[in-house]
Amino acid sequence: MPDFDDHVRGPLAPLTGVRRPLGITDVEIDGGPLGRWQKINREASIALGIEQMERSGAVPNLRLAAGEGSGPFQGYRFQDSDLYKQLEAVAWEHCRLPDESYPAFVAESAALLGRAQRADGYLNSHYQVVKPDKIFTELEYSHEMYCAGHLFQAAVASARAGVGDELLAVARRFADHLVEVFLTGGDDGIDGHAEVETALVELYRLTGERAYLELAGKLIDNRGKGLIADSGMGSLYAQDHLPVREAGTAVGHAVRQLYLEAGIVDVYLETGDESLLECSVRRWEDMVATKTSITGGHGSRHDGEAFGERYELPPDRAYNESCAAIASIHWNWRLLLATGQSRYADLIERTLYNAFAASTSADGLRFFYVNPLQRRADLIEDAYLGRRREWFACACCPPNIMRLVSSLGHYVATTGGEGLSVHQYVPGVIRSGEITLAVETEYPWDGRVLFTVQDAPGTEWTLRLRVPAWSSSTELTPDASGYAEIRRAWRPGDTFTLDLDMSPRLVRPDRRIDALRGAVAIERGPLVYCLEQADQSADVEDLALAPDAELRVVPHDDLPGVGRTVLIEADAVRLPASPRDGLPYTAAVADPPAGTPVIATAVPYYQWDNRDGGVMRVWIPLV
Amino acid sequence: MPDFDDHVRGPLAPLTGVRRPLGITDVEIDGGPLGRWQKINREASIALGIEQMERSGAVPNLRLAAGEGSGPFQGYRFQDSDLYKQLEAVAWEHCRLPDESYPAFVAESAALLGRAQRADGYLNSHYQVVKPDKIFTELEYSHEMYCAGHLFQAAVASARAGVGDELLAVARRFADHLVEVFLTGGDDGIDGHAEVETALVELYRLTGERAYLELAGKLIDNRGKGLIADSGMGSLYAQDHLPVREAGTAVGHAVRQLYLEAGIVDVYLETGDESLLECSVRRWEDMVATKTSITGGHGSRHDGEAFGERYELPPDRAYNESCAAIASIHWNWRLLLATGQSRYADLIERTLYNAFAASTSADGLRFFYVNPLQRRADLIEDAYLGRRREWFACACCPPNIMRLVSSLGHYVATTGGEGLSVHQYVPGVIRSGEITLAVETEYPWDGRVLFTVQDAPGTEWTLRLRVPAWSSSTELTPDASGYAEIRRAWRPGDTFTLDLDMSPRLVRPDRRIDALRGAVAIERGPLVYCLEQADQSADVEDLALAPDAELRVVPHDDLPGVGRTVLIEADAVRLPASPRDGLPYTAAVADPPAGTPVIATAVPYYQWDNRDGGVMRVWIPLV
Repeated sequence: MPDFDDHVRGPLAPLTGVRRPLGITDVEIDGGPLGRWQKINREASIALGIEQMERSGAVPNLRLAAGEGSGPFQGYRFQDSDLYKQLEAVAWEHCRLPDESYPAFVAESAALLGRAQRADGYLNSHYQVVKPDKIFTELEYSHEMYCAGHLFQAAVASARAGVGDELLAVARRFADHLVEVFLTGGDDGIDGHAEVETALVELYRLTGERAYLELAGKLIDNRGKGLIADSGMGSLYAQDHLPVREAGTAVGHAVRQLYLEAGIVDVYLETGDESLLECSVRRWEDMVATKTSITGGHGSRHDGEAFGERYELPPDRAYNESCAAIASIHWNWRLLLATGQSRYADLIERTLYNAFAASTSADGLRFFYVNPLQRRADLIEDAYLGRRREWFACACCPPNIMRLVSSLGHYVATTGGEGLSVHQYVPGVIRSGEITLAVETEYPWDGRVLFTVQDAPGTEWTLRLRVPAWSSSTELTPDASGYAEIRRAWRPGDTFTLDLDMSPRLVRPDRRIDALRGAVAIERGPLVYCLEQADQSADVEDLALAPDAELRVVPHDDLPGVGRTVLIEADAVRLPASPRDGLPYTAAVADPPAGTPVIATAVPYYQWDNRDGGVMRVWIPLV
Repeated sequence: MPDFDDHVRGPLAPLTGVRRPLGITDVEIDGGPLGRWQKINREASIALGIEQMERSGAVPNLRLAAGEGSGPFQGYRFQDSDLYKQLEAVAWEHCRLPDESYPAFVAESAALLGRAQRADGYLNSHYQVVKPDKIFTELEYSHEMYCAGHLFQAAVASARAGVGDELLAVARRFADHLVEVFLTGGDDGIDGHAEVETALVELYRLTGERAYLELAGKLIDNRGKGLIADSGMGSLYAQDHLPVREAGTAVGHAVRQLYLEAGIVDVYLETGDESLLECSVRRWEDMVATKTSITGGHGSRHDGEAFGERYELPPDRAYNESCAAIASIHWNWRLLLATGQSRYADLIERTLYNAFAASTSADGLRFFYVNPLQRRADLIEDAYLGRRREWFACACCPPNIMRLVSSLGHYVATTGGEGLSVHQYVPGVIRSGEITLAVETEYPWDGRVLFTVQDAPGTEWTLRLRVPAWSSSTELTPDASGYAEIRRAWRPGDTFTLDLDMSPRLVRPDRRIDALRGAVAIERGPLVYCLEQADQSADVEDLALAPDAELRVVPHDDLPGVGRTVLIEADAVRLPASPRDGLPYTAAVADPPAGTPVIATAVPYYQWDNRDGGVMRVWIPLV
């Protein structure tokens, strides 16, 4: 039995490897966008989420399963998972900043779950109430193990956050039942929606129960053997088309693929099976080069919520589900721990500040399920998902967002043989063993990050700082892994200043991305920008940029509706109006009519849709 | 009761209006692509289709309904409609060129349908066999009236083609039942899939039974009142979001919208209700300007097989269902008869030679369901629909294609107060009353069309010839409706030559079509071209054109796999290979590396996918 580590108060606590995450209580985030997100998450989103657990049916369904309620089952067959993610969010939030209401919510929920749980450990309100004769018989779409996975993660959070062990008891009973059926029992079933794999590994890490790790490994090894019945979406949808060690590219339902990858790297981390790391890295490289939005979003298709073909990256119909951004961060975090390479922290940063952060309104009360890079005028067919909404019939995203925001401190830094590695730059304090490091920065509005050592062991150690790939002119030279190393016998009061290049940039797409040809995007630091109608003097649809357009930075302390931001002004042209008469295909003309000079004003993508419902575009046509 | 016209041996026989269609027997098509399509349709497709009626379950299902067979119901709830479309194809094919096997197939099928039909006239094998208690209770997705519509069209074809009246008796019994339930019976139900409206009007035209016209009018008037339950796809999907007179743009499931429009114009033609024509024309203008592929295809989304937003016209994920092309031709044909404007005949031509013709392989044995304008290399997620297939689980397209090909003669010319109007240029003979006109042409390979009068009444009459919008330098000046008029007292032996401008053209998309920015297409005459890998010396994905690229015409009598064609060679460049390493978004560079000169060879789009399964693109990047 491994010497398991119960000191990491965060979602991921590998038992092996040189790099160790810090706990949520080890990193205080004090301001900046991440601090703001945590504030609104606590004050607005989590309160809304708890309220929705009753209103959406998640809790009433469990009462039905416990024989306590009346009325019909409400919502989807995976409705339980909403509550599990909400519980995880509440647990991490209590860990970050205690509030007596949080343990009470967890305890009350755990008690209800305990009463709803069958004697054999099985727990799923939909199947217990609606389809008791179908338990574990329609795994291709049942989400029974998917829901179990979210229960396990909530239970791990509850235990590590010190909120109570009642949830863990429920989780262990269900996990033991899964082991009985699917490991020792010989059933080769696999859930159509991967998620339980990464959760089982974490439950193993917390409890030391090796059967959980073994079950996770079996579920991963069995994928791609045609053991998942066709739910009508085909084998690609559930990544059952090829064994994971053979599949070369991310396919099908994006969230499923990404959670599966997290589980694959988790099993690698605990077993050392290099073939698992190798296949996952291969797909990561392919996905990053051919199937990733500039925002870090994944999933190019509404149809099947799927990845799509290589270089199929439409800005308007990008699906980029909020849950996919979260799952991608989970996967990249595991790859970072496994390899120490900054490219994974780079992608976490890109995803966090763009694809992920855009999912929530500035007031924390509305959410995007789908995160496209363009919104047209007068949406008709896209009207439902075209603006943030308070909640969704399928509400997988909002509580998923909350659990990540509450645990953001976990993703900032790691310790290990190499020293203290800082992956994300946020103002606050980082504590690791005898080291206490204060971080002052206005990042990402400004590129200067000041580190002050407050406590240190006296001996030499290395401060490792990620040099983002987008920062072309830093004074530091990163090593092969992408980190700059500063090795000293640091003393309290010692400081170090990192200056990142915050010049705004015009970015072009690879020519193989047909949907983006002839357009450019604006970036600054880790932020992708967009044009929103609210900031323009001309119709966004008529704006175009020159390839060498001058970009100017315009800081705002409190832009109405948006809050603190840095806008970027670009010298642009307003193209003449195009008639709408007859087919939109005409004989080629060498020189289209010229435009008139105008200023285009860009706002960070993550801050969009906080004002009107007007046109937005990340990719701006070239003149 | 109207003085109904039973002399038009074709799908559409309006009882009012100055323009009258010709029957299938009035127009002999003798060669050219349309002649070739009719030949392979007869020799290959129809034979395959008849075979599939047994294999796919369509006929066995009806045996079950008749109490004659055994085994489970097979296929979709609209499986009957496959047989109805097949019967219509066979009827028109017999009309065009008699074969004793065709009336036998129709008679056998009609007898089976008669035995399957309930005493009250109801007929639908799915509901009779699988869900007898759900008849007419789930119209939002039942397709019961949709299937009835195809039955009525098959019955009209059978009667007009002289194949027999047994099918008409079955159809009338069902139509009378629909009238009893949904017109005189007061049920306000509407089928989620429009189709029965246009069919009911045609059944009225054939039989003179005004209740059929009234029911069609009621079904159209009731749309948009929320009478269709949500099938899970929302009200736009079934065009139930707004009353038809208020809706300003085509939305939702493309085939449904387009069949609905055909029905709307049909009701206008017989009632003179101008508000119906007006709303349909308004949506046509909007659709043509903002929601139509260069091939004439419609439907930009796999998700919901839907139109999508304005200017959402992706080449790769264009749905462009073959059935939508057929429905569009039906609608445009009715608008042409209603208005006499050539723009409708122009769109019929564009759709016929491109979106529609591409649906069938050169050998007539394989079909596209979806007709995109781009095929990538190594398809994974799109593999199923990425190449033509012999048949489909949902086989709405193949028999639909067959019925249109068999009846193509019907769409060539009309008679009426203005004279004889020729809308489509095909070699053969056109007969109308005392006029017989021979047409000699190699169109669309060549632009010369020679008309020779073989019989004429002796008095003056007008030969009206459509001047296609793409032909910029014809010697004829069209009138306001787009037709050139030549009025003479034509005598036998008189000739007239039309010369159309067949110079190949480079065509640009409107700048509002983001998905096509920075690309051009090649057209010649009515044909849209594409680059297929089979014809290139370089990788299609590396080819780019200059905006003034020289285009050269290269005729082939029999290109292997393709047959007769005219290729177009273009001076192009081969772009340097682009690395696949890291994110495909990089700092803008003013001058990308230059390419090397190379020849790109384009083939007519409708002839694609007859060789390998390689890369294809209609829209070619500009250098």
